[in-house]
Amino acid sequence: MSESSYAESLCAHIKWDAAGLVPVIAQQHDSGKILMLAWMNRAALRATLAEQRAVYYSRSRRQLWRKGEQSGHTQLLKEIRLDCDGDAVLLQVEQRGGLACHTGRRSCFYRRYEERAWRAVEAVLKDPHEIYGRSRA
Amino acid sequence: MSESSYAESLCAHIKWDAAGLVPVIAQQHDSGKILMLAWMNRAALRATLAEQRAVYYSRSRRQLWRKGEQSGHTQLLKEIRLDCDGDAVLLQVEQRGGLACHTGRRSCFYRRYEERAWRAVEAVLKDPHEIYGRSRA
Repeated sequence: MSESSYAESLCAHIKWDAAGLVPVIAQQHDSGKILMLAWMNRAALRATLAEQRAVYYSRSRRQLWRKGEQSGHTQLLKEIRLDCDGDAVLLQVEQRGGLACHTGRRSCFYRRYEERAWRAVEAVLKDPHEIYGRSRA
Repeated sequence: MSESSYAESLCAHIKWDAAGLVPVIAQQHDSGKILMLAWMNRAALRATLAEQRAVYYSRSRRQLWRKGEQSGHTQLLKEIRLDCDGDAVLLQVEQRGGLACHTGRRSCFYRRYEERAWRAVEAVLKDPHEIYGRSRA
């Protein structure tokens, strides 16, 4: 199979939205913990498969985002799944450093709705200053 | 707290997209299995909390979608989480009947990319005809 038809088979069956994107869930492959939700375009999905690590599309920066490029907290690819409607992707990953969130938490989903408010219920395991340096954080 | 400010606190901190929607991941609370990804508007999120079961917004039917209203496979609410950016929601649920997918599978994410193709890798546990009746399936 040629490289072009290879990429074609990967992107086939996916219903890209009007912006050419699809939402992607990243899940820690062994614990089942949901780490984050991000977005991919075709180039990001191809890069994820080619590099065997999560590569997303940053909607704010409008460019490919190699998860962990600054923090070192890359996500090694274990498996790619597609849902029945073809409009959502699930990545099983190995989260390097154990931290997916830029706030220094394991998961980006650290706020829980309880007692009529959103409350942070997961610990900060590493100071963001240590992750990114003082210039960014 | 009044009902209106109650609803306000729930919808606060969420970054609704241009269509007034947010993507929502449903995860089986005990096994950690990811069941599906759907969408909510404000009314769906309020209904989910009020009824303690997953109520989504169907983008195709353009109306609230009480998950399981036809199949009986409702999703009982255990927990609502919000991510760091406020643009994705995670529901921890108890999936009644053990089947989230209209194809009769546990999860909608039943296709895995392997050997350069998307392959169905989860079993159909119940014939969709049995779930919905022959008229629909």
